[in-house]
Amino acid sequence: MKMKAEKILLLLVCVSFFTFAVTAGPQTCPADLESDCSGSGEWKGEFFPEIPKIKYEGPSSKNPLSYKWYNADEEILGKKMKDWMRFSVAFWHTFRGSGADPFGAPTKNWPWEDGTNSVAMAKTRMKANFEFINKLGVDRWCFHDRDIAPDGKTLEETNKNLDEVVALAKELQGTKIRPLWGTAQLFMHPRYMHGGATSPELGVYAYAAAQVKKAIEVTHYLGGENYVFWGGREGYQSLLNTDMGRELDHLARFLEAAVAYKKKIGFNGTLLIEPKPQEPTKHQYDWDAATTANFLRKYGLLGEFKLNIECNHATLSGHSCHHELETARLNGLLGNIDANTGDPQIGWDTDEFLTDIAEATRVMITVVKNGGLAPGGFNFDAKLRRESTDVEDLFIAHISGMDTLARGLRNVAKLIEDGSLAELVRKRYESFDTEVGAQIEAGKGDFEYLEKKAMEWGEPKVPSAKQELAERLFQFAL
Amino acid sequence: MKMKAEKILLLLVCVSFFTFAVTAGPQTCPADLESDCSGSGEWKGEFFPEIPKIKYEGPSSKNPLSYKWYNADEEILGKKMKDWMRFSVAFWHTFRGSGADPFGAPTKNWPWEDGTNSVAMAKTRMKANFEFINKLGVDRWCFHDRDIAPDGKTLEETNKNLDEVVALAKELQGTKIRPLWGTAQLFMHPRYMHGGATSPELGVYAYAAAQVKKAIEVTHYLGGENYVFWGGREGYQSLLNTDMGRELDHLARFLEAAVAYKKKIGFNGTLLIEPKPQEPTKHQYDWDAATTANFLRKYGLLGEFKLNIECNHATLSGHSCHHELETARLNGLLGNIDANTGDPQIGWDTDEFLTDIAEATRVMITVVKNGGLAPGGFNFDAKLRRESTDVEDLFIAHISGMDTLARGLRNVAKLIEDGSLAELVRKRYESFDTEVGAQIEAGKGDFEYLEKKAMEWGEPKVPSAKQELAERLFQFAL
Amino acid sequence: MKMKAEKILLLLVCVSFFTFAVTAGPQTCPADLESDCSGSGEWKGEFFPEIPKIKYEGPSSKNPLSYKWYNADEEILGKKMKDWMRFSVAFWHTFRGSGADPFGAPTKNWPWEDGTNSVAMAKTRMKANFEFINKLGVDRWCFHDRDIAPDGKTLEETNKNLDEVVALAKELQGTKIRPLWGTAQLFMHPRYMHGGATSPELGVYAYAAAQVKKAIEVTHYLGGENYVFWGGREGYQSLLNTDMGRELDHLARFLEAAVAYKKKIGFNGTLLIEPKPQEPTKHQYDWDAATTANFLRKYGLLGEFKLNIECNHATLSGHSCHHELETARLNGLLGNIDANTGDPQIGWDTDEFLTDIAEATRVMITVVKNGGLAPGGFNFDAKLRRESTDVEDLFIAHISGMDTLARGLRNVAKLIEDGSLAELVRKRYESFDTEVGAQIEAGKGDFEYLEKKAMEWGEPKVPSAKQELAERLFQFAL
Amino acid sequence: MKMKAEKILLLLVCVSFFTFAVTAGPQTCPADLESDCSGSGEWKGEFFPEIPKIKYEGPSSKNPLSYKWYNADEEILGKKMKDWMRFSVAFWHTFRGSGADPFGAPTKNWPWEDGTNSVAMAKTRMKANFEFINKLGVDRWCFHDRDIAPDGKTLEETNKNLDEVVALAKELQGTKIRPLWGTAQLFMHPRYMHGGATSPELGVYAYAAAQVKKAIEVTHYLGGENYVFWGGREGYQSLLNTDMGRELDHLARFLEAAVAYKKKIGFNGTLLIEPKPQEPTKHQYDWDAATTANFLRKYGLLGEFKLNIECNHATLSGHSCHHELETARLNGLLGNIDANTGDPQIGWDTDEFLTDIAEATRVMITVVKNGGLAPGGFNFDAKLRRESTDVEDLFIAHISGMDTLARGLRNVAKLIEDGSLAELVRKRYESFDTEVGAQIEAGKGDFEYLEKKAMEWGEPKVPSAKQELAERLFQFAL
Repeated sequence: MKMKAEKILLLLVCVSFFTFAVTAGPQTCPADLESDCSGSGEWKGEFFPEIPKIKYEGPSSKNPLSYKWYNADEEILGKKMKDWMRFSVAFWHTFRGSGADPFGAPTKNWPWEDGTNSVAMAKTRMKANFEFINKLGVDRWCFHDRDIAPDGKTLEETNKNLDEVVALAKELQGTKIRPLWGTAQLFMHPRYMHGGATSPELGVYAYAAAQVKKAIEVTHYLGGENYVFWGGREGYQSLLNTDMGRELDHLARFLEAAVAYKKKIGFNGTLLIEPKPQEPTKHQYDWDAATTANFLRKYGLLGEFKLNIECNHATLSGHSCHHELETARLNGLLGNIDANTGDPQIGWDTDEFLTDIAEATRVMITVVKNGGLAPGGFNFDAKLRRESTDVEDLFIAHISGMDTLARGLRNVAKLIEDGSLAELVRKRYESFDTEVGAQIEAGKGDFEYLEKKAMEWGEPKVPSAKQELAERLFQFAL
Repeated sequence: MKMKAEKILLLLVCVSFFTFAVTAGPQTCPADLESDCSGSGEWKGEFFPEIPKIKYEGPSSKNPLSYKWYNADEEILGKKMKDWMRFSVAFWHTFRGSGADPFGAPTKNWPWEDGTNSVAMAKTRMKANFEFINKLGVDRWCFHDRDIAPDGKTLEETNKNLDEVVALAKELQGTKIRPLWGTAQLFMHPRYMHGGATSPELGVYAYAAAQVKKAIEVTHYLGGENYVFWGGREGYQSLLNTDMGRELDHLARFLEAAVAYKKKIGFNGTLLIEPKPQEPTKHQYDWDAATTANFLRKYGLLGEFKLNIECNHATLSGHSCHHELETARLNGLLGNIDANTGDPQIGWDTDEFLTDIAEATRVMITVVKNGGLAPGGFNFDAKLRRESTDVEDLFIAHISGMDTLARGLRNVAKLIEDGSLAELVRKRYESFDTEVGAQIEAGKGDFEYLEKKAMEWGEPKVPSAKQELAERLFQFAL
Repeated sequence: MKMKAEKILLLLVCVSFFTFAVTAGPQTCPADLESDCSGSGEWKGEFFPEIPKIKYEGPSSKNPLSYKWYNADEEILGKKMKDWMRFSVAFWHTFRGSGADPFGAPTKNWPWEDGTNSVAMAKTRMKANFEFINKLGVDRWCFHDRDIAPDGKTLEETNKNLDEVVALAKELQGTKIRPLWGTAQLFMHPRYMHGGATSPELGVYAYAAAQVKKAIEVTHYLGGENYVFWGGREGYQSLLNTDMGRELDHLARFLEAAVAYKKKIGFNGTLLIEPKPQEPTKHQYDWDAATTANFLRKYGLLGEFKLNIECNHATLSGHSCHHELETARLNGLLGNIDANTGDPQIGWDTDEFLTDIAEATRVMITVVKNGGLAPGGFNFDAKLRRESTDVEDLFIAHISGMDTLARGLRNVAKLIEDGSLAELVRKRYESFDTEVGAQIEAGKGDFEYLEKKAMEWGEPKVPSAKQELAERLFQFAL
Repeated sequence: MKMKAEKILLLLVCVSFFTFAVTAGPQTCPADLESDCSGSGEWKGEFFPEIPKIKYEGPSSKNPLSYKWYNADEEILGKKMKDWMRFSVAFWHTFRGSGADPFGAPTKNWPWEDGTNSVAMAKTRMKANFEFINKLGVDRWCFHDRDIAPDGKTLEETNKNLDEVVALAKELQGTKIRPLWGTAQLFMHPRYMHGGATSPELGVYAYAAAQVKKAIEVTHYLGGENYVFWGGREGYQSLLNTDMGRELDHLARFLEAAVAYKKKIGFNGTLLIEPKPQEPTKHQYDWDAATTANFLRKYGLLGEFKLNIECNHATLSGHSCHHELETARLNGLLGNIDANTGDPQIGWDTDEFLTDIAEATRVMITVVKNGGLAPGGFNFDAKLRRESTDVEDLFIAHISGMDTLARGLRNVAKLIEDGSLAELVRKRYESFDTEVGAQIEAGKGDFEYLEKKAMEWGEPKVPSAKQELAERLFQFAL
């Protein structure tokens, strides 16, 4: 019942940009490009001729194509805004997002697309990417291997395609721009339908290893500061046909091998795991920050990885984004933020640009507590709504996301300057800033001693938690 | 910023079966088929040579390719099982389901597919459909216009493609098989991205009307018993850019026109609306049974429509499936059931085949209360898991879904025969089976009279609701 | 197996303020008060001596006990802020909220409480209520019958208790203060465990009718502008032991009788139904705005009722608050707003004070579209967190809730003044502002005419929905 | 603003059984019992005279007061049913569950209750407990300290009350019955409103330590096999006023002290932590199995604790119950099961008795894989619905819960005997049962080696996951 390989290839040749990212056709472009697959020739001139370089115009500006709050070189809390934020453009949503969804065909017809998934088209797209980055005024980008270059007939050919596009990207990066991170896409191709590192098929495990090996190499070559693992297919659909214990062991072996290889080639970037509870699988092994931390501890991988926290993944797992960020921070694992937001009434990943100012302020509270995110940063794992089809919308969305987080940072500065909220918290815990408290915190508060104290002290006092006051003080800064 | 029409067409010619249903490429096949689009020739012989005609073998059978509980001609509660169930195969999931999901490419490589979306391929698929139906031993099927025949360059050409495939379907139906229902697919093509009847674009509204007109015609021609409206794009993504009142008015106008046209051409089938709360939109106007009933009442459309209730849609809207079925029944609107189930921990439509026996029993309680569903029935709006890629899996899934509902029907018969559960309910309400109760139920219980009674009677008794007993009695029948 | 009535009464005498609202003990206070039940004597002097009259100090104020945005007499969009808002204090949360929850005992020890549920204590509490209202500077309050006066041994005695407290309230109201609404509490007492109007027990139905009759009377006597029905127990826990159709019929009869009685006594206030999906029951019959509208239409009650929309109930039903408000408005049913908010990650009613400025802005968009809410208004169905135990917290919470909504109103004024967002929406629908559009909207767009147009026009255009721009324009006003 | 201590005490004397468990009044009974608090004298004769000893009558029985599937001494899979199940009755739900909920007063009026929370009443209740246990035919019970004996004026007096009741329980246990586990209730009393071990108040931390110390002692004295920690208040309501890192450190110090004390007194029972995501708090630190495992690993407590998994808590955290059980098992932490179920459409803990046969089968799959639960077992953290008010309902509910799990065990035996499902799983992973697979599993599969293999092997095969077949095979056993 297998389709013949040739037939598949022929099909894949045609299934092109329309289907990427959401419809996710496995893109193949053999070295001997047939005419169907070849691009329509080189793109001339600007990609976004009507969009100027985006500038900071301040809060009174009414221009949607300006920054009202993000002023890259302005210093806030002792650091330039751009060094707090370390924004990066996500190649896949921005340049491969087709607008397809489970019930609908692609909707985006970007002018530079020729309808193919050729290497030539990949290069054109890469040029558009760097024009976009430069017009936004950011210094970073991030990518999956397969979103920047097409599959070939064999792994060797695929790697060759990738090398060709990466060489161009390296050139276009110039001296200032670098990948915030790279990653391997182990979820779209049918071979990964049961997982990559957790596939029950040995051959798939090996293939995934080869793909990650190459992706680490190109990330390293481009000067990437981090490398991300998102295990979209590393999980299960049903426990009835799954050996979860064996799959988790395989995942650990795979990550150990990644660590070893990274060291071997001298890649010093941080390895990041991105938790997500589910979708596409019923359960993904990196469910949330705590689950992932437990996995890393169980398998002795703790020092080798950090987490890439995404707000929409946080809320899908039943947590607030702030909770996941704090959990990562307290476990020493906060490495990067996938900047986006979801819809509180929707049960799947909508990957919207964050425009909620209060939420942005909470996110920035943790970032500031963490002393920033470097070598991590923010990347926009956020996409235009399917119905937003103007090139201009790509800019408005990114500006909005950047400006919202920038306003969040400014609000944190106000909170810190005012000091009232921090003082409220300090006072809540001050009974532990005593000799007995210190004993307990030093692990010397045994139960007999504490019982003696409890009887001596009688009924303890319990003051108001002052949550409404805390919320009001927080709101004053918005 | 528009892609040239030719370029789009060229692409659409290629985006074929891989992308249907989930990746949902708008399929176009011009009359003058180019070689890329033409099929690989007629399919010879059987489509499922290794699958025998499925038979009833009874509960002791261990053969997954047999019915253990569904015995079509056996009489249960005074009616043949097949007349209670009126099962139908859904063309789209079964023959166009590609296995694609928002993070992954198609996974199904059915042997008869040649990779095109040509009219020839559409015909081959239709033949496979009828072999499948015959082997399962059911009498009905259901379809969207665009899943059985490809788009053409113009609406005229598209209609011509449809006519050609419909003619074949008519022939293959023979004397026994009929559509349970037909429908128009108004959600995949980018033109419908803002809705069909509720699109802010007048041209799209007209186009949708033309498409529904044709779909009603072909459903009528094929002897269909119902016609379904599922408004996947009839809703909103954001209230900020939406005029909800105007959109709802447009929807009502559209449905009024459908009613008028149905009558004009003498189509006597029932018009069904299928509620779903959201996905793909943030909010769909047919959110649940009560919302849809309110809409029908508000716009004076109540007598003209019934509902097609889907269990997975029910649970996504926060209700049990049983609740939605009962709500439809009590509003006189229960018309058809989209037989499937979701995963209680997953926030999107997973469209799984129902295998939960207790749930199937609850569903059948309402069906029996309703005296059956005719002229509606059950259609399997359920799909194989993406990772289920054997042709055999198509059969196992359908048999499982049919058998589970059949077992549910048998369980209801046991409950009715035993009578204890019905008696428990009767007793709970017996205080209203009195003269005062009758007064109240007749609308003659005014507040002064009731206050007098309340003072006369003193503190009322409140017996146990016996829910645990009810659950145990229910379980005894499983 | 019944406890003797005396024993119950003795217990109820003691179960007092500790248990109200959350722990919900049925409070009984016989006319011949025993010493355990009698209050500790009259409260002298101010209740909140440390809290000054709350004043508007403007946005630069850092005083949590001042208004930064709510300036009662300031005119916004042609109306005084107080006339837009029509704020009211909810007696139950504010004066009977004990801090108990399903896992914990009461935590609030307000200084004026003497631990009893006596009529004397009820009067003291009422005085505290009016001092609170006056210090906040609002003109309205709202109440359930049983939160302002204790149960007696009989309905007659209970009514007498209520009359005594109501007389005092009337006096304390003075010339300026009125109830926004009154209601009957039909959910706490065990007699209502299966419902009031939908109880399977005739005696309970009659008792509920008598109680609502009295509650309408006292609301009328106090000059109340509305009367509310919240059916906390009008629903089901399990469909297995429930006759949903009969219960819904009973509910309709009950509401008809309420309408008749209201008219008979000349009460001109609006009758309001408050939708809530569930909690305490598995399913409440007034699930959401659309469900309730359907019920009203089905039973011919549409003109007699409006809705009281609560944001936390909206989100529990899977909708945004804005959606529920718009649904009510478009059905001509927006009567009042229960001002609160929930936690998007929590699946029960947390009844928090709204502090989200963006959300408050969305709420006020609908209020302004509706031309205000009069004779309805905003009442704070919001409570202090269980851990907030200072009297001051009551003030901070209310000020915060009022100020947030006031800031929302100011933001709406900014949006309207700017006009960009409204223009974006107008443009989306302008293709219907044509002759053909007008035909369709007038119900003259039949399918044959539309098909002709569709073929004539060819593939329709579908512009970008500009959602990101809409969100950015919205955010500019925050 | 503090209520005088005397006033509180007076009130607490009265707030009695009505308020336990759900309304949760802190129960106080001073040594010098006042008449209001004293019980009505000793209970004579049987508590459940109309309920016979429950017997196994087999599947054909129609008697709701018999076991159809639970046959204690029957051997299944090599062990007696009672040794697989190790059922225990939960004292709190069964004897202190009042039927109160956040919107309603208590509904249960058990005949033996006299309305007080006296020590005498506590003893009567304990006798009822043992009659109940004996009639059900189980050997275990479990309890919180405060549900079996009332608070006194001081901790010393409270401990004395507890000792008195515990002495009676010891006697009533006889030679056969033992506690499955004991625990300290650190969530009802207002002193614990901010937490026990995680309270910001030092005095509360000490008080909690003293209380746990005593609870471990009495569990040990009664021969308890386990000791449970459920941190209902160990979490946060808002991150704005919380120092989560410091609170987690305190929790670890507390648990370390518990381990030390347990060892010191020679208690060999297992310490169990019971995960729950939220309710009453916004976030509880023991969110789910993986989160708790991470905490135990982080603080070096892994070997000292196991988990008590509750199905309703599992589903509230977004997981299936089966997932949580497997996660606990794979982390070596499966210690005990809180047998209950929730409602998939309800967002709070409904603590229903499990009656879903398929779910019970999944639960028992893990129990059998784990080789049983000893020294843990099953306890019924499940309660009657509020509206179930007959004494008989207590029996029906427990029988139903026991029978359902027993049927689950029988189904697992069928699955194992048949073997088809296990074989399906084995085959899925067999590519790893090879030399290369063994290399990988041994940690010797480095990326260079694997890349070589991947290139050598070419495109890997990916067979069907056969989920539908697995579900059908599972269903065959039901």
